[in-house]
Amino acid sequence: MPERTPIPRDRDDDYSVEAQRARLDFLREQTGAEMAHVAGKAVEPAETAGNIEHFIGTAQVPLGLAGPLLVNGEHAQGEFYVPMATAEGTLVASYNRGMRLLHEAGGVTVTVTEDHMQRAPAFIFENARGARDFGVWLAENFASIKEAAEQTTSTGKLHEIEQYSASRILFTRFNYTTGDAAGQNLTGKATAAACKWIVEHYAPGIERFFLESNFATDKKTSQVNVLNTRGKRVVAEAVIPNALMKSVMRSDSALLFQARQTSSLGGFMAGVNNNGSHSANGITAIFIATGQDAANVGESSAALVYTELRQNGDYYYSITIPSLIVATYGGGTGLPTQRECLEAMDCYGAGKVRKFAEIVGATVLCGELSLASAVVAEEWVDAHDLLGRNRP
Amino acid sequence: MPERTPIPRDRDDDYSVEAQRARLDFLREQTGAEMAHVAGKAVEPAETAGNIEHFIGTAQVPLGLAGPLLVNGEHAQGEFYVPMATAEGTLVASYNRGMRLLHEAGGVTVTVTEDHMQRAPAFIFENARGARDFGVWLAENFASIKEAAEQTTSTGKLHEIEQYSASRILFTRFNYTTGDAAGQNLTGKATAAACKWIVEHYAPGIERFFLESNFATDKKTSQVNVLNTRGKRVVAEAVIPNALMKSVMRSDSALLFQARQTSSLGGFMAGVNNNGSHSANGITAIFIATGQDAANVGESSAALVYTELRQNGDYYYSITIPSLIVATYGGGTGLPTQRECLEAMDCYGAGKVRKFAEIVGATVLCGELSLASAVVAEEWVDAHDLLGRNRP
Amino acid sequence: MPERTPIPRDRDDDYSVEAQRARLDFLREQTGAEMAHVAGKAVEPAETAGNIEHFIGTAQVPLGLAGPLLVNGEHAQGEFYVPMATAEGTLVASYNRGMRLLHEAGGVTVTVTEDHMQRAPAFIFENARGARDFGVWLAENFASIKEAAEQTTSTGKLHEIEQYSASRILFTRFNYTTGDAAGQNLTGKATAAACKWIVEHYAPGIERFFLESNFATDKKTSQVNVLNTRGKRVVAEAVIPNALMKSVMRSDSALLFQARQTSSLGGFMAGVNNNGSHSANGITAIFIATGQDAANVGESSAALVYTELRQNGDYYYSITIPSLIVATYGGGTGLPTQRECLEAMDCYGAGKVRKFAEIVGATVLCGELSLASAVVAEEWVDAHDLLGRNRP
Amino acid sequence: MPERTPIPRDRDDDYSVEAQRARLDFLREQTGAEMAHVAGKAVEPAETAGNIEHFIGTAQVPLGLAGPLLVNGEHAQGEFYVPMATAEGTLVASYNRGMRLLHEAGGVTVTVTEDHMQRAPAFIFENARGARDFGVWLAENFASIKEAAEQTTSTGKLHEIEQYSASRILFTRFNYTTGDAAGQNLTGKATAAACKWIVEHYAPGIERFFLESNFATDKKTSQVNVLNTRGKRVVAEAVIPNALMKSVMRSDSALLFQARQTSSLGGFMAGVNNNGSHSANGITAIFIATGQDAANVGESSAALVYTELRQNGDYYYSITIPSLIVATYGGGTGLPTQRECLEAMDCYGAGKVRKFAEIVGATVLCGELSLASAVVAEEWVDAHDLLGRNRP
Repeated sequence: MPERTPIPRDRDDDYSVEAQRARLDFLREQTGAEMAHVAGKAVEPAETAGNIEHFIGTAQVPLGLAGPLLVNGEHAQGEFYVPMATAEGTLVASYNRGMRLLHEAGGVTVTVTEDHMQRAPAFIFENARGARDFGVWLAENFASIKEAAEQTTSTGKLHEIEQYSASRILFTRFNYTTGDAAGQNLTGKATAAACKWIVEHYAPGIERFFLESNFATDKKTSQVNVLNTRGKRVVAEAVIPNALMKSVMRSDSALLFQARQTSSLGGFMAGVNNNGSHSANGITAIFIATGQDAANVGESSAALVYTELRQNGDYYYSITIPSLIVATYGGGTGLPTQRECLEAMDCYGAGKVRKFAEIVGATVLCGELSLASAVVAEEWVDAHDLLGRNRP
Repeated sequence: MPERTPIPRDRDDDYSVEAQRARLDFLREQTGAEMAHVAGKAVEPAETAGNIEHFIGTAQVPLGLAGPLLVNGEHAQGEFYVPMATAEGTLVASYNRGMRLLHEAGGVTVTVTEDHMQRAPAFIFENARGARDFGVWLAENFASIKEAAEQTTSTGKLHEIEQYSASRILFTRFNYTTGDAAGQNLTGKATAAACKWIVEHYAPGIERFFLESNFATDKKTSQVNVLNTRGKRVVAEAVIPNALMKSVMRSDSALLFQARQTSSLGGFMAGVNNNGSHSANGITAIFIATGQDAANVGESSAALVYTELRQNGDYYYSITIPSLIVATYGGGTGLPTQRECLEAMDCYGAGKVRKFAEIVGATVLCGELSLASAVVAEEWVDAHDLLGRNRP
Repeated sequence: MPERTPIPRDRDDDYSVEAQRARLDFLREQTGAEMAHVAGKAVEPAETAGNIEHFIGTAQVPLGLAGPLLVNGEHAQGEFYVPMATAEGTLVASYNRGMRLLHEAGGVTVTVTEDHMQRAPAFIFENARGARDFGVWLAENFASIKEAAEQTTSTGKLHEIEQYSASRILFTRFNYTTGDAAGQNLTGKATAAACKWIVEHYAPGIERFFLESNFATDKKTSQVNVLNTRGKRVVAEAVIPNALMKSVMRSDSALLFQARQTSSLGGFMAGVNNNGSHSANGITAIFIATGQDAANVGESSAALVYTELRQNGDYYYSITIPSLIVATYGGGTGLPTQRECLEAMDCYGAGKVRKFAEIVGATVLCGELSLASAVVAEEWVDAHDLLGRNRP
Repeated sequence: MPERTPIPRDRDDDYSVEAQRARLDFLREQTGAEMAHVAGKAVEPAETAGNIEHFIGTAQVPLGLAGPLLVNGEHAQGEFYVPMATAEGTLVASYNRGMRLLHEAGGVTVTVTEDHMQRAPAFIFENARGARDFGVWLAENFASIKEAAEQTTSTGKLHEIEQYSASRILFTRFNYTTGDAAGQNLTGKATAAACKWIVEHYAPGIERFFLESNFATDKKTSQVNVLNTRGKRVVAEAVIPNALMKSVMRSDSALLFQARQTSSLGGFMAGVNNNGSHSANGITAIFIATGQDAANVGESSAALVYTELRQNGDYYYSITIPSLIVATYGGGTGLPTQRECLEAMDCYGAGKVRKFAEIVGATVLCGELSLASAVVAEEWVDAHDLLGRNRP
């Protein structure tokens, strides 16, 4: 385990130009990142072509640095300093605290288990039999459809067409891998080409089709994506000794576990898309910093938390993010500050997307433990008061 | 209906400094907004105190301008130019197009129907009877609890405590109005004070309580918030003559309606939190521009779309946003570019939050119609091809 | 704790007329119940008037007896023998086994925590403001509406009107208590009368209303009923020493707890309405036996299971049934065999419905522990094989 | 279209022995069914062996006859008389009325589009990578696993293993076809054998597995089964001319369509598993009559209703039942009255299960239209009053 080098901080005035500069110097030293635009250089209009219309300037969102984050990924290995863009005070500090805990616990194990991006056309027929028969034909002609789709893209690969039928409609999900791009546009274009081929070749005829029908479910959160993945499916795991819980977090694994059981039940009753604490906070802050599409926060913040209180008091904590939509290429990733932030983690460009997904997953886990501990620590105090009152 | 003044655009090169300047001048003329930081002036570290830790600079997110948006609200009335921060190309253009359609249709009627912000402590007892009996006491002592909660805040008002029981636990939702702030912190502090009072005064005693238990459901999307509102519940409505659908959108209300029926069914099967198209896009872009917490996009992008195809071909379209979390004061709203963007809509500071919520709702509706028309227009073309093929 | 008297069983041939008679004699001795129709006397057509049309005879569903069930309710106290109608072999035996376990553990604590029956009219207005304003009026005129509703019924009491708004529609839930009847018809009639009064008295006018709009949500399972109760909300709880788990169930509380954690996660991902095992089995079998409406099994089988593995190895197990729809009067409860089965538990007629609800809840808990143990016991064997294989 | 022969009814006293006998004679004439036990002959204890334990007699549930139901299925073709067991007065009459409407409209088109029965073991590993790698192995070894599973059964065929991962767990769904049996037991046994093979052959080892983990989701309703089918996926469709709506139902297609839009929205907000009216009523009544497991009513009553108001006023109505669990062999189907009821529809035994599923689907559709019309007809009256009041 590497020795932990904390980020410089000025205890007298951490909001001075000098404090900012000290951190930028530190970051440059650790990672080689220059961060000129992050530091204040304004973005030129021409640099935003393709990303915006009616350009009038930029929204400047404060960037804080959290780390070092210790990641045991298959692609991301070692320490990372994570730029987070937010205006929510304490957020960066809270994630930073969680990163300290997990660093001392040996780091976060992260795994990307699946990878799909969808477009979801619906096909309408005279009746349900028409829809069912078309489904059979669709499966039989997968190779040709794949060929038609992939002629529109060099990186997108169509690997599956899911089918869901209702009434006289066949809903489909065209599942692609999309390289280092998030891939929503790529899959749209490829699926349009595939649909053109389908319409031309399906002899019995299709009454009507719509290129999208809310089954993707782009910019929305859904059970189908919790089940079947959209973007990357990422699992972050760690085992934290109770001694660390106590020393770093002033908390206790048994109490954390009980709180978790309670909030899992609460979430199930409330009908949440996430039985964890606040993955959206970390995800959004990294998304804005690195040029991801923050409009995907809804689907990306779905999460499945599963924990175990081990017999020796160790706390196994895992979070599964079933539809994390990330890119290291295309979209907003090439904009000046965004690219700088990706580069500070060596995550810009080709072949980096899984590494980046692992860093996001590990960050999220740190935030979960930090907030959960805070809730419980507060309770801890109150519990003492309470116990005191009950035992005069 | 006012005559519509479109935003200046340079058809040769719209990404020049001159094109940017022309729009800023136009905006200043229309609204009086100076937009110095948006235009490029860097944010000083000291200006971010309270919003970030470990400050290293800013993420610069491209800002585009959409409008004029014609709003028939109870608080927002007339035309607005809406700053949107995004890196997704065509997004601003698409919303702008929808704003043109709705302007010609007479504007968007928007209504804020409810307003609540929650903190959700859970209380644990020896058994279910303990939880149930505590619930009765809680209702009876509402006035005292309210008093304890409100001593911590000048703007927050506790107006209701919802109860949901399971096992030996009583889950609660403390519902507040929070003035022009989003109010998550305010409600946390007030509820902690309320819980302190409760623990001290409930004679039979509470085994344990947790200040939060996933019933709020902060930073998550949930059925309970679709039902019971978190933040503002906003309904945006309009009736669009089919002639406008055809002329402005190259679309057709009957076809749009069929597409809507199909995607409503698809969404219901998929288990979505939003049976509309892409409200998250507009909401996120405005949130980043104006200093809202984009980590709330999950819950804020839940939506209920309901439409009617009228006998004369008119298309009634409504979208209900059940948990829109917005502020015009506090949080990130006071940061330099964010405040400028709010001021450009005369939405900064006290007494403006409902006006702002209405503008967001109206913007979302414009985006729904624009994307839906695009999907259908594409189909329109294909449908023609298809029909042609079937009738040789 | 009473000494447990098991139900007579003939180990040689338990499907003889003698074995049947021995049990009927035993039941008569324990409870005084005659059970003539259960024993074989055919139902007369005239006895079914009001319950069926186009009568052609009866479906004869096998009835088994489980017990003694030891209940620590507020209304049901002591031992009960529970008639269960099913064709699923082993079901009665499995519940019976669970009843033995819980009897030795000191019985099941059961609590009815809420009680509501709904009818859910929707009111449509020109726009969302119309719906919102009507909601205010509705709250202000509750007393008059209550009076209009209650004129149609001697037992139904309207105690609340919930409001949920979307688009230009106000959805409502009229919540009643309905005495010992399930109350769906009663609430329908009362709400129709209330709506008549509303339509006549709401000066601004209502464009249209529908007496039911899927918000009740009769014969369906829903999140709103998990949250807000339909019928009775029943919690059954017990603490089972691990020694009993081992001796009676050949199981282990730690293993059961892990299985529970796994299946809670599985259920959350799968989008279930019940994170427990099979409450529907016990509920359906009692429903058919006692003349409840088995078409309510969907909503009645929603459940929230919450368990704790205590430090000493004790297993705290609770199941919350949020929408158990039961009656001891009206509907099918007065039919010959159904009434006999209710009488065998002293649950027929006025003032018995909560007692009956408690017995159903306690039965369900017994079945949960029995099936869970069976799943785990099987695993236990395999786990041994597995461990054996890994350690040659 | 065959001429419709209505079921005999005695307008003076329809609950006499003579009226019952007249219907039984009619049924015998139409179908050859003897119905001795339905008519009153008591079931012998020995006939219930394998279906019940601790037998004490039978619950006698009133049986009514509805029909003729005109079915345009792929397996069920022509007219059927449907026995329904219920104690809810008016239920049979209401379904009968719907059958009359659909008979005049040319019958119900019904299609079985999918067929799967599941058992869902979960496998636990050291970490997420272990779970992912096992998933790859599982797919590669499908043929051997299939062989192991199918050695335990002559009718069950394993055709797919779905995988869903979270944390360090791989959840699976083993999908079988099960001939004319419902198949829950068969799939349990086969999957246990498959798991035994898996545990013995997976070299890296499995930390633990559970044969069931709430992903099946037996006796529960769930989104995964709405998406992926459990039992039969059945679509029933019809186009009803508005003239028939008016003459037979005193209703109107445009009004029905508006009510449907309203209740679809209401259901979506409420979080229902069924956006239709009351499929559970018809399904439960047929289930009890024919020896299906009524504990499956939760999952079987999930439904997706999709309708269209055609330009000429015709009403296209479809209902999709995604997880209808039915059998014509095994379970309770061989019990005396249950077998008689199946035989009355020529649906007992081998090769009949899809025919039976189609009859159930068609019946459900009739009930939907009947109840919807009743709700609207009531409104119709009130609407007239309302309009009268508004126009003095």
